[in-house]
Amino acid sequence: MTRHHDTDRTPVTVIGLGRMGRALAEAFLRDGHPTTVWNRTAAKAEPLVASGATLAGSVADAVAAGPLVVVCITDSDAVRELLDPAGGVLGGRVLVNLSTGTSQAARATAEWAAGWGAAYLDGAIMGTPAAIGTADAFLLYNGSRPAFDEHEAALRSLGAGTAYLAEDPALSALHEMAVLSLMWNTMNGFLHGAALLTRAGVDATTFAPVAKASIETVAGWVSGYARQIDSGAYPVDDITLGAHAVAMRHLIDESAAVGVSTELPRFLASLADRAVNAGRGDDGYVAMIEQFRTPEEKR
Amino acid sequence: MTRHHDTDRTPVTVIGLGRMGRALAEAFLRDGHPTTVWNRTAAKAEPLVASGATLAGSVADAVAAGPLVVVCITDSDAVRELLDPAGGVLGGRVLVNLSTGTSQAARATAEWAAGWGAAYLDGAIMGTPAAIGTADAFLLYNGSRPAFDEHEAALRSLGAGTAYLAEDPALSALHEMAVLSLMWNTMNGFLHGAALLTRAGVDATTFAPVAKASIETVAGWVSGYARQIDSGAYPVDDITLGAHAVAMRHLIDESAAVGVSTELPRFLASLADRAVNAGRGDDGYVAMIEQFRTPEEKR
Repeated sequence: MTRHHDTDRTPVTVIGLGRMGRALAEAFLRDGHPTTVWNRTAAKAEPLVASGATLAGSVADAVAAGPLVVVCITDSDAVRELLDPAGGVLGGRVLVNLSTGTSQAARATAEWAAGWGAAYLDGAIMGTPAAIGTADAFLLYNGSRPAFDEHEAALRSLGAGTAYLAEDPALSALHEMAVLSLMWNTMNGFLHGAALLTRAGVDATTFAPVAKASIETVAGWVSGYARQIDSGAYPVDDITLGAHAVAMRHLIDESAAVGVSTELPRFLASLADRAVNAGRGDDGYVAMIEQFRTPEEKR
Repeated sequence: MTRHHDTDRTPVTVIGLGRMGRALAEAFLRDGHPTTVWNRTAAKAEPLVASGATLAGSVADAVAAGPLVVVCITDSDAVRELLDPAGGVLGGRVLVNLSTGTSQAARATAEWAAGWGAAYLDGAIMGTPAAIGTADAFLLYNGSRPAFDEHEAALRSLGAGTAYLAEDPALSALHEMAVLSLMWNTMNGFLHGAALLTRAGVDATTFAPVAKASIETVAGWVSGYARQIDSGAYPVDDITLGAHAVAMRHLIDESAAVGVSTELPRFLASLADRAVNAGRGDDGYVAMIEQFRTPEEKR
């Protein structure tokens, strides 16, 4: 069904129509933005075109279609490679890079965009494609403040949680990396726990509500932990890091006894043991941050 | 202030007055249970005695004081060691073991308790001492169903989230281990993320709300993940495991570039790369469970 384009809505371009790119274009279309799309494999644009999007014949045509160009492809290095031939038409427009990548790549892309006379915003998407356009999507932008202010209304089509942090375009990538680390580790913890329990005949579905409650419990600790990190003092509010390290050895034994991999608990314990050996055994768990802060070569 | 003991409340004994044991005894006292306590270092009982608890002169006296004996000490092995000399008075009572430990130790303790004629419940506390006695404490019991039914009301004094799962006493320890793994990994993910951002000059306190929202996002995925685990199929609902593995390399590069440890991202990537090499690159992230299930020697 072709959707109505509101005449007061900013025309937008979405380059890259993977799962996330398609979700971005759909959210713009739902909100009535005239939406131009481009993808290396044009077939992926078909459902969007059926919903009212315009398929551009080239990257340069896509860029030329409007003032706001959103790109979501493999990574930030690929953004420069893909858009460089269209650099001449990029001048005067706002480039919003929602591709993942390191903060170094984001900074390089910001400099490259400035070289073509484009304003640059680097965005981090905290959420799945399914969350885009809903209250559950959180998008954090860093880079040109005037560009954000000009297009904030359009960007809000992508998620209710749309925020601007700072001029440094590298900070979006850094937040995204930090969030990915957090999510991967949380998921691994759940999967290791589920591996333990399913080996003993407990369905993962039985474990799920307990796991969910436990994850939410940790979510509730985060702001207190953050204050400890910023203050540089790690008081014990539960059990000491030394006691955690002992309990991690139970987890190694348990994993071995039920016949699952001990690799994850051994990794946890090796970090905790190192913190204890560094004199942090009587501190709280947050003292572990030193293990993550200190590069291997400085240890 | 001495609290009133309701005559209809089951007398309880709490053995072990570390942070958690004290919280347990306080919760029983708050709910009007006549509460007898014992600890190796008697001084730790003083605030409880001031609140109306009775300090027993010996472990055997503590056990003899009532029908419900709750023990929360170093671990389950220590429980047998401490209580064995009082085994003669344990017969006919209900022993509730809230100490941490492996499921093997829980099973051994259940058998040992049965040998003395005591009913046995093994409990897992999902929550901090501060949460005990509130709606935020979740306590899961496995073992004697009749013992749980008889003392459920008293056990509810310890937390609104009081549940019984199964006869196998090992399942509490296994749940506790699974939850600990989940919590440690989640906390490590947060700390590594905070290490990245604070190195770039972003306060952990600024990161905290983003981190909290991200953790809660993962909490929302858990039941769907559990269904995938139980069904043995791992469809992609976001990005493929192969794409996750690529993004993990970005995290390694990012960590190296900002000058924090690359140990955690290298560990994440090594597991994901192995799953990709095992042919799981086009599956969803949940396929990673195989990496946690397969013991090292069977790989």
